[in-house]
Amino acid sequence: MTIDARADRVTLAAVAAEARVSISTVSKVLNGRADVSEATRERVEGLLGRHGYRRRTSPSSAAPLIELVFHELDTIWAMELIRGVEDVAREASASVVLTESGTRHAPGPEWLEGVLQRRPLGVVLVFSSLPAGVKDQLRSRAIPFAVVDPAGDPDPDVPSVGSANWSGGLAATRHLLELGHRRIAMITGPEDMMCSLARLDGYRSAMSNAGHGVDPTLVRFGDFHVQGGHDIATELLALPADRRPTAIFAGSDLQALGVLEAARRQGLRVPEDLSVVGYDDVAVARWSSPALTTVHQPLRNMAQEAARLVLRAREGASVSTRMDLATSLVVRNSTARLVEPTEA
Amino acid sequence: MTIDARADRVTLAAVAAEARVSISTVSKVLNGRADVSEATRERVEGLLGRHGYRRRTSPSSAAPLIELVFHELDTIWAMELIRGVEDVAREASASVVLTESGTRHAPGPEWLEGVLQRRPLGVVLVFSSLPAGVKDQLRSRAIPFAVVDPAGDPDPDVPSVGSANWSGGLAATRHLLELGHRRIAMITGPEDMMCSLARLDGYRSAMSNAGHGVDPTLVRFGDFHVQGGHDIATELLALPADRRPTAIFAGSDLQALGVLEAARRQGLRVPEDLSVVGYDDVAVARWSSPALTTVHQPLRNMAQEAARLVLRAREGASVSTRMDLATSLVVRNSTARLVEPTEA
Repeated sequence: MTIDARADRVTLAAVAAEARVSISTVSKVLNGRADVSEATRERVEGLLGRHGYRRRTSPSSAAPLIELVFHELDTIWAMELIRGVEDVAREASASVVLTESGTRHAPGPEWLEGVLQRRPLGVVLVFSSLPAGVKDQLRSRAIPFAVVDPAGDPDPDVPSVGSANWSGGLAATRHLLELGHRRIAMITGPEDMMCSLARLDGYRSAMSNAGHGVDPTLVRFGDFHVQGGHDIATELLALPADRRPTAIFAGSDLQALGVLEAARRQGLRVPEDLSVVGYDDVAVARWSSPALTTVHQPLRNMAQEAARLVLRAREGASVSTRMDLATSLVVRNSTARLVEPTEA
Repeated sequence: MTIDARADRVTLAAVAAEARVSISTVSKVLNGRADVSEATRERVEGLLGRHGYRRRTSPSSAAPLIELVFHELDTIWAMELIRGVEDVAREASASVVLTESGTRHAPGPEWLEGVLQRRPLGVVLVFSSLPAGVKDQLRSRAIPFAVVDPAGDPDPDVPSVGSANWSGGLAATRHLLELGHRRIAMITGPEDMMCSLARLDGYRSAMSNAGHGVDPTLVRFGDFHVQGGHDIATELLALPADRRPTAIFAGSDLQALGVLEAARRQGLRVPEDLSVVGYDDVAVARWSSPALTTVHQPLRNMAQEAARLVLRAREGASVSTRMDLATSLVVRNSTARLVEPTEA
């Protein structure tokens, strides 16, 4: 038995004594075994937290698994994130365990039990915030975890990887300004997501930096989905000719696809009659007709970095708590120089 | 020890004696442990096969995991298939372990070792054929497996789930005939995939059944990707006006997206100047502009059925070896009645 293992044993004995259970019951709780009453489990978990218990494990005691948890697989992002974690898992000769939690905010208790039993190398979560209980339980079992957080609203005490939303909004808007557009509409995401606000602020800064005001009727909050983008664009394109946008910066590629459809239904050609910029650069941005000019959000890299954070933490390295990867503009065929015949 | 367990023990002892190793070495091979030489492993595997050894396991001895193996996650199908397996896993309170094999034909030996160690409920593979060695090893460990086979070329001795490709090709072509089209081009998939041939034969049958010949210049083999669809459609649309197709049935939604882009570049409107039908009904078919009329291939259901086959086999039920799920036509906005002004 190593010194570390002996120290572990001393803490477990103290927890067992205080909880008035056997050491083997404490060990059952640590391993997520089902044959412990809920009351005992809670008492033991509380004491483990109070004693600051951290299981000491050698890398070899973990199973070659990386857990990846989503609240929903429905999103078009999921595939890119899965591929990123899979890339790093393959390098480490590990497999990926996928869980869809079905709830927006945190994986459920059955999931946590499964993780404690499986003893993975680590956990990558696609959530902005985690309940304190989940964090405590993972920490006490020395299971490292990191969050991929495209929403841009990270927990300060959890390692997380996001991307530069403000810069992305700025770059998209500058591109349209450079093409001569002035009446540039923005359809950002939901009002309660930090990434929506950051992209919108990037747009505002680009406009004011170039000496242009922002017409408030041209700024809308969307839902990041195709139909929402379509509906808002239909309204924007119905404005009187002198107030109608000549370009729309959609806060996501899906919203941009909705804008393309709204334009088609009104007989407008993209990019000749309307320029459109998306955000994310998911595969459909390349495949749409015309292919979308968009802001590349490096989802696959973000997931790779989160998986690497987890593996580095497993090896005992200290890891940074927040990393924002760069976004970049990808110019394709949905944007063109403004031609205003009425001003010719 | 139950009678089954005793019978197991007898077989293992016989294998061990014949291989001149200990029973514990045989057991290591069965559990995919790394500390056995390659030569010993092969000898033991061979004898296990010869003795027809089948591990007898109670459902509770398996980990609550379903393995899902792809040769590449790159495909737009992957997400639908993952969701299908995840649906069934969630019902069974299990998690999904995802592996990308990176090779077209079978998962590698490290994967198999991992599976033997993890002892999952079962394995769902997205491959048309599996090497005999992989099948033997999974069978001897009593790990049930099934194949999701969209390519339509199943191994006769493996439970597999596909879909009705021929009927799909027939339905798509009939729809275009009913809209008045006669010069209907077909861009099917690669020549060496059964699903491509079945869809093409469905097209041919619909044409001849309606009393129309097929112009061989209008039938092309593609690669199921956007660029391929674009390039072939560009050629088709460059034919002289009296031989140019008025409708194109693309063998996949991605090819159909390429056809949309080819039409846009030639200044043709879809569906006014050209009708387009896709195949698969993946999410992008709904999101494209115009939304694609397409043949729904129930990928998510196919994956659900494959996962259910595996769970039923685990419970000892006998399972059918092949199941083809129905395809169905989904009419959206990329097809319209033929208007031929020259014939008016």
